[in-house]
Amino acid sequence: MDYPSKVLSKAIEEIAGLPGIGRRSALRLALHLLRQPSSQGISLGAAIQGLVTDIKYCKECHNFSDQEICDICNDDKRNAELLCVVEDVRDVMAIENTGKYKGRYLVLGGKISPMEGIGPNQLRIDSLERKIKSHTIKEVIFALSSTMEGETTAYYIYKKFKDQDVMFSNIARGIAVGDELEYADEISLGRSIINRTSYNEAGL
Amino acid sequence: MDYPSKVLSKAIEEIAGLPGIGRRSALRLALHLLRQPSSQGISLGAAIQGLVTDIKYCKECHNFSDQEICDICNDDKRNAELLCVVEDVRDVMAIENTGKYKGRYLVLGGKISPMEGIGPNQLRIDSLERKIKSHTIKEVIFALSSTMEGETTAYYIYKKFKDQDVMFSNIARGIAVGDELEYADEISLGRSIINRTSYNEAGL
Repeated sequence: MDYPSKVLSKAIEEIAGLPGIGRRSALRLALHLLRQPSSQGISLGAAIQGLVTDIKYCKECHNFSDQEICDICNDDKRNAELLCVVEDVRDVMAIENTGKYKGRYLVLGGKISPMEGIGPNQLRIDSLERKIKSHTIKEVIFALSSTMEGETTAYYIYKKFKDQDVMFSNIARGIAVGDELEYADEISLGRSIINRTSYNEAGL
Repeated sequence: MDYPSKVLSKAIEEIAGLPGIGRRSALRLALHLLRQPSSQGISLGAAIQGLVTDIKYCKECHNFSDQEICDICNDDKRNAELLCVVEDVRDVMAIENTGKYKGRYLVLGGKISPMEGIGPNQLRIDSLERKIKSHTIKEVIFALSSTMEGETTAYYIYKKFKDQDVMFSNIARGIAVGDELEYADEISLGRSIINRTSYNEAGL
C-alpha cells in the first residue's frame, strides 16, 4: 500500500519491524498516535530511545539494573548462599513476582542450543564459575526451561562444577496448580508422582 | 509487576499506552528491542517523534500530505468533478488501493454521532461547502460507514446541499465478493437485490 505522507510511511515501516505487528496494525497505531496530543508520541519515542541507549546490566547477576549492582544483589537481607540460575531476565521477573524466593540470581543469557549455534561460551558460565569458586554459595537452583536445551544446560553446568563444594537443585516439575489430571501430559504426571511431597493442611 | 530498571519500566509504561498492547506484550517488545542493535530502537523512536511533529494535512482534502496540497489534489489527470466524501484518512488509502477511483476526496474527520458528542461542527462540512459552491464539482460520492452514524452524516450533508447544482451518490452496498448468500445478512441481501446491475460477461 502507498501512504500519502513520507513521515507516516517511515513510522509504519519502523513500527511494523517489531515482532507480531504487521503493517495494518502499524498503521492503526500510527493513526492512534496522531489522534492523541503530540506529547504522547514524543514521550513514547523518547522512552524507546532511552531504553536502548541507557539500559544497564548488573555486573553480578546480568539482570537489568539502573546501577552497577542491581537492587537484588545489593540487598543484604537476601540469602547470599542461594543462587538461582535462569536463562533470561524475564525469568527473574517471573520468580520475583511469586514472592517465594529470597536468594540471588544469575542470568545465563540463553541456553545451550546446538541447533541455534549457542554453546556454553555464549552464556555467562564464567560469572557462575567465579561465584561458585568464591565459596559464598551453598546451593545452585536450576530454574531453566523444561526442554531438551534447558536440561542440557543444567547437565553441562552440573558436570562442570559437581566437584565444587556446592549443592545443585532443580525447581519442581509436575502438574500446574489448577490443572486437571486427565489432561496432563504423562511426563509431567510421572514426575509429579515420583517427586510427591508430604501432605500438609495448607496444601503447600 | 516490578521491573528491575527505571528505563525499562518507563518504556513498558509508554508502549502499553498504545491500544491493543498490554504490559506483557510491551515487555516482550522492549526485550526484543534490547536484543537488536540499539540503532533500531533509536530509529523507531525518531520515526514516532517525527510522525507526531512533522505530519501535515492537505489544505484541500484534509488527507495526510508532505506538502500543503497533497499529490491527489495536485494531480491534474484526476477528475476534479468527482468528490468522494470519507470519514477518515484510512478510507482514502483503502479506496486508492482499489485503483478504481480517479476523482478527488474530502476527509470529514469523523461522522455525526450524538452518542460520542460529535456534531456537524466538528466535521469539515465548511470545506465541503466551499468546494460545492466553487461549482467545479458535479458529483459528491458518499463513501461512509454503513451504520446509523454514517447514514445520518450522509443525510445531513444531502439535506444541507441538495439545492446546489450537484448530484449525490452512495457507494454500492450488497453482498461482498466471495461471500455466500446463505450467510449474508438480510439487509445487505435486500439492498443487493434492489440495486441489482445488468449482467455482463466480465462479471463486473
